Amino acid sequence: MTGPRYTALVASLPATVPFVGPETQERERGAPFRARIGANENVFGPSPQAIAAMQAAEAEIWKYGDSTSYDLRHALAAHHGCAPENVMVGEGIDGILGYLVRLVVAPGDAVVTSDGAYPTFNYHVAGFGGALTKLPYRDDAEDLAALLDRAAELDAKLVYFANPDNPMGSMLPRDAIEALLDRIPEGTLLVLDEAYVEFAPEATAPRIAIDDPRVIRLRTFSKAYGMAGARVGYALAAAPLIAAFDKVRNHFGMNRSAQAGALAALQDHGWLEHVRAEVAQARYRITAIAAGCGLTALPSATNFVAVDCGRDGAFARRVLAELGARGVFVRMPFVAPQDRCIRISAGTPQDLDALAEALPQALAAARG
Amino acid sequence: MTGPRYTALVASLPATVPFVGPETQERERGAPFRARIGANENVFGPSPQAIAAMQAAEAEIWKYGDSTSYDLRHALAAHHGCAPENVMVGEGIDGILGYLVRLVVAPGDAVVTSDGAYPTFNYHVAGFGGALTKLPYRDDAEDLAALLDRAAELDAKLVYFANPDNPMGSMLPRDAIEALLDRIPEGTLLVLDEAYVEFAPEATAPRIAIDDPRVIRLRTFSKAYGMAGARVGYALAAAPLIAAFDKVRNHFGMNRSAQAGALAALQDHGWLEHVRAEVAQARYRITAIAAGCGLTALPSATNFVAVDCGRDGAFARRVLAELGARGVFVRMPFVAPQDRCIRISAGTPQDLDALAEALPQALAAARG
Repeated sequence: MTGPRYTALVASLPATVPFVGPETQERERGAPFRARIGANENVFGPSPQAIAAMQAAEAEIWKYGDSTSYDLRHALAAHHGCAPENVMVGEGIDGILGYLVRLVVAPGDAVVTSDGAYPTFNYHVAGFGGALTKLPYRDDAEDLAALLDRAAELDAKLVYFANPDNPMGSMLPRDAIEALLDRIPEGTLLVLDEAYVEFAPEATAPRIAIDDPRVIRLRTFSKAYGMAGARVGYALAAAPLIAAFDKVRNHFGMNRSAQAGALAALQDHGWLEHVRAEVAQARYRITAIAAGCGLTALPSATNFVAVDCGRDGAFARRVLAELGARGVFVRMPFVAPQDRCIRISAGTPQDLDALAEALPQALAAARG
Repeated sequence: MTGPRYTALVASLPATVPFVGPETQERERGAPFRARIGANENVFGPSPQAIAAMQAAEAEIWKYGDSTSYDLRHALAAHHGCAPENVMVGEGIDGILGYLVRLVVAPGDAVVTSDGAYPTFNYHVAGFGGALTKLPYRDDAEDLAALLDRAAELDAKLVYFANPDNPMGSMLPRDAIEALLDRIPEGTLLVLDEAYVEFAPEATAPRIAIDDPRVIRLRTFSKAYGMAGARVGYALAAAPLIAAFDKVRNHFGMNRSAQAGALAALQDHGWLEHVRAEVAQARYRITAIAAGCGLTALPSATNFVAVDCGRDGAFARRVLAELGARGVFVRMPFVAPQDRCIRISAGTPQDLDALAEALPQALAAARG
């Protein structure tokens, strides 16, 4: 008896995983982390109104969620000043990226991203057989002009660009992006991942007509809205592209309580302001803690800070391991020269107390 | 400016949707339903312990869910007497079916199912370009022997078989299934959808060695466990097939609160017994209501009852529409001759009061 016959594409895929989760690391080390500031989660949590809405919705969890996410989609359209037909709600940006890659990438199709940018995008491109080209960062930022030029050379179907960027926290101001839009090649779709944009300065998100067929914007309730575990993201794009998702998406895939939570979170502007303020405080303190250790923190338009450990990737990996051994979960960029840094998420004062205690020790151990 | 270039496969797909949700129907009719007994949801809801676990988990919803669903996977393994490596947790059976079809079906690959069986499976097969063959029901049940024989003729990669069956509610006893297992062709995977099996008599689920590479079993928390809106399903199969899901699944796709709720639900055996008893009462009453109208209810091993309206599909569709107009949401089989029936989910006493009131009126209107 043999097992199933996988597709040739699946048989060729490695069994790699984009990220090892903190729970897995905690089980491996045999103890919980003191500070969970590695996955760019929002430790300040969602609006209390969102929590209350989710808790109330559990009483009706026997019902499937609305397959059209009607209420949330309409609220998002009002929020962004577009039509509901320009909004697609999905299972986090990860889920939406999977659908999007499936819609446009056939085996061998060219796709362009930055070397060291979001690995889950790369995972989906590989999973559908795309030919991924990775361009280096420039001055610790994704190089949009170079990405678009390479897309033209390769006749790429997708270009991935995160603004603000993860893992470095850098951003490109909207004027600079808008000036480059006309360099999007014919037939290429720019995937503008704005997961962190609510943390960025006002003039970060570019002004792009919602019906512009060259761009899809991705947003999420996982970061500024503090609902990573709920799995709610959304895409903003021209109506024909939004409609195309209906051909492949899991129509009844949304958690009903998460839909209710996102709707409530969207309406609590005060909480979003509170979170932004807390995150700004935390970024400031991470920068100060790093400086106290003689390290330079990079400027950040997100809820995390990349801290330059001053040597190479091997050294930063040792610092990371030593922090982990001291109960502080952080992550780091995968690719040189950005891997000279560790990436620290905005934590609570208690989280950052743990960081302040552990970082000098970790640096000493890594050096010694 | 043109839009994105879709794959040839996607461009060929229709923009159909497997099901129209009850919320969409309520918006179209401009009023809520009095009785929501059309989607085979479990109106008796999840264990109060599961609701409490989900509500408690919302306080930590800022954290991503555990990407390995470790606790739930281990609890399920203990529950089924297998290893955690034989269990894959996913976003409902719908989500798991999507991953499974993607793993094995390349464009043109043969797949076999029953005509009128679960449309979401067909949606996924079409979405990955599979060549789907549909065999007729036999005596209002899926015909496993015929499905396997046709799979051999076509060298099919997948055969879909739901036991108990949806939409008819019939079941094949385990002895009959076990006697047919040796007819699974070499290289064919039997997809045994057991979404409703907790409602069925004891000797329904076949005894199949967990390491048998020819079969994958699908289970869910959406039906007997009353958590359809949470989106938690799981697969039981040989370890290599379970491991293959890691190549394509959305690793951080599970809602964190849903993971906690499923874990609590699994442990509340008393609630499951309570639900089974309520469902049995409801089946009995639906049968009586039908008989009071001169209609025959088919025997059911599920939480729904197919009621034969005694004429053709056009008549049953009129009955369905008349019930909907009276605030009673039910569904019906799509394919003749099963479409002579309407499919009524086990409801609360109040739901079935509404049915008892509306059905005679709906029948009269449909006849008149």
